[in-house]
Amino acid sequence: MRYPNGKRKVANQGINSHPSSTHYSNRGMTLEQDINDTNEFYLISNRAVIHKKPTPVQIVQVDYPKRSAAVIKEAYFKQASTTDYNGVYRNRYIDFEAKETKNKLSFPLNNIHEHQINHMKQVAEHGGIAFLIVRFTAHQKTFYFPSIKLFEFCDDRDKGGRKSIPLKAFEESGYLIPMKYQARVDYLDIIDKICMKNGGTTHG
Amino acid sequence: MRYPNGKRKVANQGINSHPSSTHYSNRGMTLEQDINDTNEFYLISNRAVIHKKPTPVQIVQVDYPKRSAAVIKEAYFKQASTTDYNGVYRNRYIDFEAKETKNKLSFPLNNIHEHQINHMKQVAEHGGIAFLIVRFTAHQKTFYFPSIKLFEFCDDRDKGGRKSIPLKAFEESGYLIPMKYQARVDYLDIIDKICMKNGGTTHG
Repeated sequence: MRYPNGKRKVANQGINSHPSSTHYSNRGMTLEQDINDTNEFYLISNRAVIHKKPTPVQIVQVDYPKRSAAVIKEAYFKQASTTDYNGVYRNRYIDFEAKETKNKLSFPLNNIHEHQINHMKQVAEHGGIAFLIVRFTAHQKTFYFPSIKLFEFCDDRDKGGRKSIPLKAFEESGYLIPMKYQARVDYLDIIDKICMKNGGTTHG
Repeated sequence: MRYPNGKRKVANQGINSHPSSTHYSNRGMTLEQDINDTNEFYLISNRAVIHKKPTPVQIVQVDYPKRSAAVIKEAYFKQASTTDYNGVYRNRYIDFEAKETKNKLSFPLNNIHEHQINHMKQVAEHGGIAFLIVRFTAHQKTFYFPSIKLFEFCDDRDKGGRKSIPLKAFEESGYLIPMKYQARVDYLDIIDKICMKNGGTTHG
């Protein structure tokens, strides 16, 4: 966790602590938490089965202490080869990536890795519904952004165009996700809406 | 890695090594490797988009050394809340768990966690294709086993019935997955076969 003064919280866990250590369990990932809670609500209300994938980690060394759980002593973060969330809704495969930005006027495209874009293209090609969820924290607005629109911005960037998606594009080509009490990021309602509009042939 | 004498390989990584440590990177997970390679082949041949989920890990402590990558110094294995593999094929959501057994005559049901069974039930309910891939290593036979059959055996066990699925059930209600050169566990061919048989309404 980074604090405003640029310093990180120092761990204090006795034998395992280390001056340059930090605790990782309580990062302030509000959008992630909102989506996890929403997915949990979808699951218990039997609306859809959508889960976040675990963080990919390369495990190098594991201790097996006697009479207690295995402890991973050395591991590294790996780059994800797919998006963070997927699952099934109304017989359809659902796949998305969620990102927050502090920017007020645009969402920088370098927030999404190239292989994640490729993954979403493959998903859309095979009939899955792929999209982005982007929260502009300054405005507290969260958008559903169809992958097909994302691909247009990426293609444009690759031809020398702008390196970000303007907020205006989210307002015009995306869908504002209303904040609800039980499903704080109710993106399935947006999918229903798009699906109805398109006569049941949503592709993100 | 466990060796035949029951001892584990001891890590030897200088400052990070520990007498009771073991290296985790090269476990002999043959079925897993075969499936990963098959999925890779499906992906590059543009047939389907199916990935293994990362191992779920609870990260407790991370070091950020200067000028090098973040190192996870303390983490624990978490129980998976879903199955290991999912993705999209011919517009359908695919979800499965893969297991090897050394048993010659049956596959013990306690190899599959209760919440994984529940997850597969939810997936099937929402129109996904859920199944097991089980390899009997002694026979070098790998089976596709529809989730609906798995649920029958689980229900039977919960009523006091047998705690395993006999090899015979795999031969009669499952599908032998032929070993191919490029797709060593070509389970999508089985899905096609079942789908054709059922007129396109496979539910695992």
